[in-house]
Amino acid sequence: MPLEIFNQYESEVRGYIRSFPTLFAKSKMAEIWDVDGKRYIDFFAGAGALNYGHNNPKINAAVIEYLQNDGIGHALDMGTVAKRDFITSFVKNILKPRNLDYKLQFVGPTGTNAIETALKIARKVKGRKQVMSFTNGFHGMSMGSLSITGNSFYHDDSYGVPGYTTQVPFHNYLGDKVDTIAYLRKILGDDSSGTELPAAIVLETIQAEGGINVAGVDWLKSLREICYDFDILLVVDDIQVGNGRSGNFFSFERAGIQPDIVTLSKSIGGGHPMSLVLLKPELDKWSPGEHSGTFRGNNLAFVAATVALDTYWADDTFVKELQLKSQLVEKRMQDLAFRFADHIREIRGLGMIWGAEFKDPELISAICSQAFADGLVIETAGAADDVIKFLGPLIITEALINEGFDILESAVEKVLIRNRTQEGKEAAQ
Amino acid sequence: MPLEIFNQYESEVRGYIRSFPTLFAKSKMAEIWDVDGKRYIDFFAGAGALNYGHNNPKINAAVIEYLQNDGIGHALDMGTVAKRDFITSFVKNILKPRNLDYKLQFVGPTGTNAIETALKIARKVKGRKQVMSFTNGFHGMSMGSLSITGNSFYHDDSYGVPGYTTQVPFHNYLGDKVDTIAYLRKILGDDSSGTELPAAIVLETIQAEGGINVAGVDWLKSLREICYDFDILLVVDDIQVGNGRSGNFFSFERAGIQPDIVTLSKSIGGGHPMSLVLLKPELDKWSPGEHSGTFRGNNLAFVAATVALDTYWADDTFVKELQLKSQLVEKRMQDLAFRFADHIREIRGLGMIWGAEFKDPELISAICSQAFADGLVIETAGAADDVIKFLGPLIITEALINEGFDILESAVEKVLIRNRTQEGKEAAQ
Amino acid sequence: MPLEIFNQYESEVRGYIRSFPTLFAKSKMAEIWDVDGKRYIDFFAGAGALNYGHNNPKINAAVIEYLQNDGIGHALDMGTVAKRDFITSFVKNILKPRNLDYKLQFVGPTGTNAIETALKIARKVKGRKQVMSFTNGFHGMSMGSLSITGNSFYHDDSYGVPGYTTQVPFHNYLGDKVDTIAYLRKILGDDSSGTELPAAIVLETIQAEGGINVAGVDWLKSLREICYDFDILLVVDDIQVGNGRSGNFFSFERAGIQPDIVTLSKSIGGGHPMSLVLLKPELDKWSPGEHSGTFRGNNLAFVAATVALDTYWADDTFVKELQLKSQLVEKRMQDLAFRFADHIREIRGLGMIWGAEFKDPELISAICSQAFADGLVIETAGAADDVIKFLGPLIITEALINEGFDILESAVEKVLIRNRTQEGKEAAQ
Amino acid sequence: MPLEIFNQYESEVRGYIRSFPTLFAKSKMAEIWDVDGKRYIDFFAGAGALNYGHNNPKINAAVIEYLQNDGIGHALDMGTVAKRDFITSFVKNILKPRNLDYKLQFVGPTGTNAIETALKIARKVKGRKQVMSFTNGFHGMSMGSLSITGNSFYHDDSYGVPGYTTQVPFHNYLGDKVDTIAYLRKILGDDSSGTELPAAIVLETIQAEGGINVAGVDWLKSLREICYDFDILLVVDDIQVGNGRSGNFFSFERAGIQPDIVTLSKSIGGGHPMSLVLLKPELDKWSPGEHSGTFRGNNLAFVAATVALDTYWADDTFVKELQLKSQLVEKRMQDLAFRFADHIREIRGLGMIWGAEFKDPELISAICSQAFADGLVIETAGAADDVIKFLGPLIITEALINEGFDILESAVEKVLIRNRTQEGKEAAQ
Repeated sequence: MPLEIFNQYESEVRGYIRSFPTLFAKSKMAEIWDVDGKRYIDFFAGAGALNYGHNNPKINAAVIEYLQNDGIGHALDMGTVAKRDFITSFVKNILKPRNLDYKLQFVGPTGTNAIETALKIARKVKGRKQVMSFTNGFHGMSMGSLSITGNSFYHDDSYGVPGYTTQVPFHNYLGDKVDTIAYLRKILGDDSSGTELPAAIVLETIQAEGGINVAGVDWLKSLREICYDFDILLVVDDIQVGNGRSGNFFSFERAGIQPDIVTLSKSIGGGHPMSLVLLKPELDKWSPGEHSGTFRGNNLAFVAATVALDTYWADDTFVKELQLKSQLVEKRMQDLAFRFADHIREIRGLGMIWGAEFKDPELISAICSQAFADGLVIETAGAADDVIKFLGPLIITEALINEGFDILESAVEKVLIRNRTQEGKEAAQ
Repeated sequence: MPLEIFNQYESEVRGYIRSFPTLFAKSKMAEIWDVDGKRYIDFFAGAGALNYGHNNPKINAAVIEYLQNDGIGHALDMGTVAKRDFITSFVKNILKPRNLDYKLQFVGPTGTNAIETALKIARKVKGRKQVMSFTNGFHGMSMGSLSITGNSFYHDDSYGVPGYTTQVPFHNYLGDKVDTIAYLRKILGDDSSGTELPAAIVLETIQAEGGINVAGVDWLKSLREICYDFDILLVVDDIQVGNGRSGNFFSFERAGIQPDIVTLSKSIGGGHPMSLVLLKPELDKWSPGEHSGTFRGNNLAFVAATVALDTYWADDTFVKELQLKSQLVEKRMQDLAFRFADHIREIRGLGMIWGAEFKDPELISAICSQAFADGLVIETAGAADDVIKFLGPLIITEALINEGFDILESAVEKVLIRNRTQEGKEAAQ
Repeated sequence: MPLEIFNQYESEVRGYIRSFPTLFAKSKMAEIWDVDGKRYIDFFAGAGALNYGHNNPKINAAVIEYLQNDGIGHALDMGTVAKRDFITSFVKNILKPRNLDYKLQFVGPTGTNAIETALKIARKVKGRKQVMSFTNGFHGMSMGSLSITGNSFYHDDSYGVPGYTTQVPFHNYLGDKVDTIAYLRKILGDDSSGTELPAAIVLETIQAEGGINVAGVDWLKSLREICYDFDILLVVDDIQVGNGRSGNFFSFERAGIQPDIVTLSKSIGGGHPMSLVLLKPELDKWSPGEHSGTFRGNNLAFVAATVALDTYWADDTFVKELQLKSQLVEKRMQDLAFRFADHIREIRGLGMIWGAEFKDPELISAICSQAFADGLVIETAGAADDVIKFLGPLIITEALINEGFDILESAVEKVLIRNRTQEGKEAAQ
Repeated sequence: MPLEIFNQYESEVRGYIRSFPTLFAKSKMAEIWDVDGKRYIDFFAGAGALNYGHNNPKINAAVIEYLQNDGIGHALDMGTVAKRDFITSFVKNILKPRNLDYKLQFVGPTGTNAIETALKIARKVKGRKQVMSFTNGFHGMSMGSLSITGNSFYHDDSYGVPGYTTQVPFHNYLGDKVDTIAYLRKILGDDSSGTELPAAIVLETIQAEGGINVAGVDWLKSLREICYDFDILLVVDDIQVGNGRSGNFFSFERAGIQPDIVTLSKSIGGGHPMSLVLLKPELDKWSPGEHSGTFRGNNLAFVAATVALDTYWADDTFVKELQLKSQLVEKRMQDLAFRFADHIREIRGLGMIWGAEFKDPELISAICSQAFADGLVIETAGAADDVIKFLGPLIITEALINEGFDILESAVEKVLIRNRTQEGKEAAQ
C-alpha cells in the first residue's frame, strides 16, 4: 500500500491525497507521473502555484546551477545577489512597462503571510481597525486572513477569529438586478449604517476558490472610485489570479485600475515558496524590522522567479500565447456546457481560469474521480463544491488542453451512464 | 553602490540588510562570502534556520539530484515519494527513539503558520477561546501568533489583534524569589481571578528572541503538571530552539516532559522553507482540508530534511559533538564575561544558544557593527536589544567557534577603546 | 443665571439642557412649567418615558400612599407585595389578552440593561456569539448595546466595542426597489457569505432615534419567517415604541407576530425607572443569580406601573382613544407637510410617533429653538438630525395636540421669514 | 402560597427571593416586615443601596412633598430645580470639604452604567483600548463592566465579552510575601511583558462581592504612584463601598489619594435609583450628548439624595457615629471568630463592611437560612460564597447591631449542633 504511511502518521487534515490517491513521483511542465509510471495531465497547477509548469527546464537549470555554485540559500532580508537580480527583473519586466511604482515587501513565503502584511500596513497607515472583504472571498488560513475569508467551512466558533471585518456583496452576488456598488456606497456614506469606515477593501478581481466569479470591468472601476471617495485603500489579492492567470500579469490590468496594495504569492516564486507585497510608496510606513519572517528571503525562489520573469514577461509573446490558449479553453468549456446542458448551470471564466457550475455537486465529485482514473488532475471550486475548474499551467500546450478536455468529457459521460444504469437498477427493484 | 537597488525599491521594513550592509554571494556551512569575496563567520545561522549549515554538501547533492530527475517540486498535500521518505525518516530517527507518537501535520512553510495551526486545533479540541503565553515570548507576525507575542515593538494599536490571550510570567521573570508557577496555579484555580481557563499554554522552553531565557527543568515539569491538572494543552514552540539547538532534537527532552503539541519550522527543512506541527493522536480532530496552505508540500524541503535527519539523527554521534561544542561556546562566553565584567551583566544559555546581556544596549550595537566589519555575522536579542547572542550553525567547527569569538572579543575591545578615546576628547573640549 | 451651576459643575456631555435652556420646576400630564412660571406643551415625553404623562394623578396618588405606609422601596429581587401586584397586573392586562406566555425578567432599570440581558441570554441559549441588528438601529450606550447601535456619533475607535455583530439593511433602506429581506435570506443561507449565523436579530419595528422609520407589516412577517427558518431568535426592542406608542401595547401586534424576546423600559415603570425583559419560557435558561443588578427591584416603579396597567390597559378604551389622537397627529403632520412642501421631504409615522423629514437639518435646529421659545418642547431624530418628531405623552388631549402643532407651524413660519430677511440683507450688501 | 406567582411567571434568574423566601411588605430604617408581620433586622441594606435605611423619615417626607407639589419627575438631562439642588449640595457637602474638584456626570441609574461610562471616557481620553482590573473584582453585568469582573460565574463563553482587559493580582492576592505592586510595575515597565499599557486601572479599595478584601493604605498609595508614573487613569469604583460605607464618604480618603475618575451608585440616590460619575475636569472630553440614557435624570433620587447629603454629610457628626458603630461591629465579629474559631478562618473588614471567612462554605449557607428564620437578613460574599458579611444600613442603631449579631451567633450554634447531631446519627447507623 503506497499511501499507508500517510494514513498512519499524517494528520486527518490531509485533503488532496484523498482526491488524488496515488504516490506521485515525477513531473514535467503540464504532466505528472506516479510511482507506477501512470501519466496525468495537470489541469490544477498546484492551485495556481505552477503557472510556469512543473520542473520548467529553464527554471530548473538555473536553480541547479545556483546550488552547484553554493549560492546563498537562506538569508532572511539580507542583501544577496539573487534578491538583487529578482528586484531588477521585476522592476524592468513588470512594474516599468505598466507604469506602476510600487515598493516591494518580501514576506514569509505563503499567501496568507502576504494578506496579513497587507492588513497590518493598511490598518497602521489609516489608523482604522475595520477591513472590508467580499462574499465568497478566500484569503487564507491564519487568523487575520481567515477573518476576511467567507467560507464557513474554514471557521470554528472557538477559533476566536476577531471582528473588525465586514463582508459585503461581490459583483452580481444578488443577481444582476441589484447594484452592489450602490449598496456599498450607501452604507459607507451613511453614518448610521452601523458599518464603520474600513482602512481597506480586500478584493479578488476573480474569485477562484469562491467559484470562479469574475468581477466586471465597470464594477471594478466603480469600486476603485469608491475607495478614492471614502479614502479607503484598495487591496487586490492577486495570489491566485495574478502571475498571468487572467491573461495579463496582474488581474486588474483589464480594468485599467491601480490598487494601493497588491499581494502576490503562489507562482511568483517560479514554483518555489515566495510571497511579495506591493505597496504604493506613500503607504510604506513600516519601521525597520517591524514585520519579519524567517523565510522571507528564499533565494532559490528569487533565482527561479527571475528566470520566469525574464523568460515570459520581457515582451508580449507570452500574453499573446495566453490569448490563443484561453480561447481554446473557453471553446472547450462551451462545448462541455452545450453537450451536458441538462447538468451544467453555467460556465464562467477569463484567461486561463474557467469553471463549469453543475446543478448537482455530487455529480462533480464522481466526475473528478473518474477523470483522475483516466489520467487527469482536475479540482472543484465554490462554497458548495459545485464548480469544476480548469486551472492548468499557463505553459500547457494546446494538444494537452484538448487531451485533458477529452478525458473530462468522457468522464462526465461515464458518470452519467453509470448513474442512469444505477437508477435503472433501483427502479427495477 | 551594490545595495542601491534595495534602497530604491524595497520597503522600509527591511532590517538585516541594515545591520549587515553588504551583498552576499556565496556560503558554505558556517561561512559566507560577499560579492567582493570578503569572508564572514556565521554566528547567526539565519536566525536558527541553518542549523545544518549553508549549502550543506550532502543536502545540496540530494536536492540537485532530485531536481535533475524532475522529482515533484510542489504538490500541496498530495502523496509524493519525497514526502513519504520524510515521514518515514522522521518517525524512525526522531519519534520512535524518543517514544513519541505524534501525528504529523504539514502546514505552510513558516513558523507563524505552525503557531496559527496549533492555536486553532487547541481551541477547537478544547472548545475554549483563551490561550496563555509568557512574558517575552515570541511566536510570529500573523494575527494569531502576534496575539501571543510579547514584544510591543511588533504591535500597533490599529492592528486589531484580538484578545483571548493572557501573558503570564516566565520562569524567574520576577526574580528568583517569586515562584511564577505558584502564581499560575493560583489564578487558574481561582474562579474569580478574572483569567479564563485557556485551551492551551504556548511555551518556548528557551526564549530566544526574548533574550536567551532558559526555563529550569523543575519549572518545566511543574508547568507540565499544571497543564494536566487543569486540562490545558501544553504547546511547545520549538521553532527556534528545536532541531538540535538545545543539545537534543527537541528542547523539552532535558525535562523529560511530553508536550501535547509541538511546532517545528526553521531548520526542520534542512535550509528550505518548511513547517511541521506534531499533535498527540487524540487531538487530531481536523476535518479533511479544514486547514490548508499552498506551500505545505514543499518537496525540496522534504528531500533536504530527510538527508539532514538520516545524517545527523540516526544515532547519538551528533548529540555528543554538540555537547563538546556547547562546552566550548559556554567557556568562550564565560571568558568574555570575565574579561568585560564591567559591561556584561550576565551570560545565559544552553546547548548551542548563548547570550551575554550587556548593561548598555548602545554598546552592543557598536560591537555587532565592528564584528561585522571584522568578518563575523552576529546578532542581538531581548526586548531592549541588550543581549548579544551566539546562534551559529550546529555543524560549525571548533576552529571557527574560536575564530569567531576572537573576532567578537576584539570587537568589544575596539569599541571600548574608541568610546574611551571619544570620552577623552569630549572631556578635553 | 439659573443654569450657571450646571455649566460650572456638570460634565460637557449634558445635552438636552442645551436644547431647552431653562430650569424646569413643575409638570402635569402634557404640560411643564419652569421656575419663572412659563408653560410648555410637551411633544417629547421624556424620549418616550412619560407615555402616561408627568405626575399622572392616579399614579402619583398611589406612589404617595405607598411611601406614607412605608412600603418596601428597594429590594433587589426579593419578593415584595408591590412586585407581586405588578406581575399579576401585567399577566392579566397584557399577556393573557394577547395569548402571550412570556417569562418576566426584571433587570436594572435602564433600556440598555434590558438589551444587554437579551443579548446575553440569546447568545447563551443558542451558543452563538454573532448578533444581527439593523442600519439606523439604536439600542443603548453600554458596550453590548452600543455594538448593535448604528449611529457612529456614539462610537469612538478607542471604546473597544467588540465585533460579533452585523448590521443589515432595514426595510426600504436601499429604496423600495431593493428587497432587503431577500438580501438577508441570501447571506444567511450562503455558507460563504462571510456572515456568521447569528444567535439573534434585534429589531425596532419602528426606528425612533433612527428617524421614525416604520417597518411594513409584510416585511415584519417575512423577518419572523426567516428567524424561524434559520433558528434565529427574534428580539424586539420595544423600549421606545412599546407601552402603547404604536397604538397597541406592543409595537409588533400590528403584524401578528410573536418575538422570542421583548425588551421594555422607559414608560413601563409609569414614569419611574424600570426595565423588563420578556422571554419565551423555553429560553429561560438562566442559573439563579447569573445576571443581577442592584435596582432591578425598584418597588416605586412597580406601584406606578401597576396603576398604569390597571388604568389604561384593562380594556380597549385607551387603544380607541389613541386611534383618534393618532389620526389628529397624522392630519396635523400632513398639514405641515402641505404648507411647507418646499422644505419637508416626507412625513413618516404610526400611532403616536410621527416625524417630518426636512431637506435642511439646520432649519430644524432653528425651528426647535423657536418652538421652545414659544412654549413647545419638541425634539429631532435621524442620524443627520433632519427629522422633527412628535412624541407627546399618550394621555395628551386633542386640544393640546392642536395647540402644540399651532406653535410648531408658527415656529416654522417665523424661521423661514427670518431666513428670507437675512438672505435679503446679505444679498443687499 | 405567597410566592407562587413568582415561581410561575418570573425568570429562573431570580436569586434573593430564594435565599429570603417570604413576601416583604413594609420596612423602616434597619427593619423589614413581611406580609405576616414577621420582623427582620437588616444586615444587608440592599447590597449597599440602603446606607441611609429603608424609608428614612426625612428622605421620605421630602419625596412625598415633592410628589404632592408635582415636581418634575423624569427629565433626561434637562435642568431642573431638584437637580440644581443636588449639585449644590454635593459640591458643598462632599467635594469642597475634601478639596476635590470633579465634574459631575449623571448617567443611567445603575452601577454598571457608571462603570461603562468610566471605561468609555478613559479609553477616549487616553486613546488606548486596554483596561486593567483586579482579581476578584466585581463591576457589573453589562458587557463592558463584565469584561473587568473576575467571577466566572457571571461569564459564559458565548457572551462574546471582549478582550482589551487584563486582571492583575489585588493586594495580598498571592499572600503577604509577594509584592503585587512590584509585579504590576514590572509588567507595565517591560515592553515585552505582553501586557499593553492600559488607559485605566479600575479599583475597588475594598472588594465587597469579592469577599471583603481591604487594600492597605500603602498599597493604595503605591498604586496611585504607578498610575502617575505610567500615565494611567485611576478609576475608583465606589459603588458599593462609597457613600460612607468605609467610615468616610469615599473609600479612598483613608489613603489620602485622589482618583482620576470615581463611580458612585447604590446609596448615592438615598434609596432611589441613581448613578454618578466624577471626572477630573481635564478628562471631561465628551461631546454634548455623546453618552446618554433615559433615566439619567431621576429627580426623585435627586430630592432624596439632597436630603441625605444635607442630613448626614454637612458636618462630621455622622462620621463619628460610624466610628463607634464600626468598633461595635468589629468587636462582635471578633467575638464570633473567637467563639467559633474551629470554623472561621479569619475576619476582615473596615468601617461598616465586615466579613467572616468560614472554612466550610456549606456551613454558611445553612447559617444564613437559620438566621433568616430567626429574623435576620444577612448575605454571603466571595467567589466560593465562603464569607458571611455584615453590610447593615449605616443608620442602624447599636441595639439592632447587637440584636442582629445575637441572632447570628445563635444561628451558627444551632447549625453546628444540628450538624453534630446529624453526624452522630450517621455514625450510629
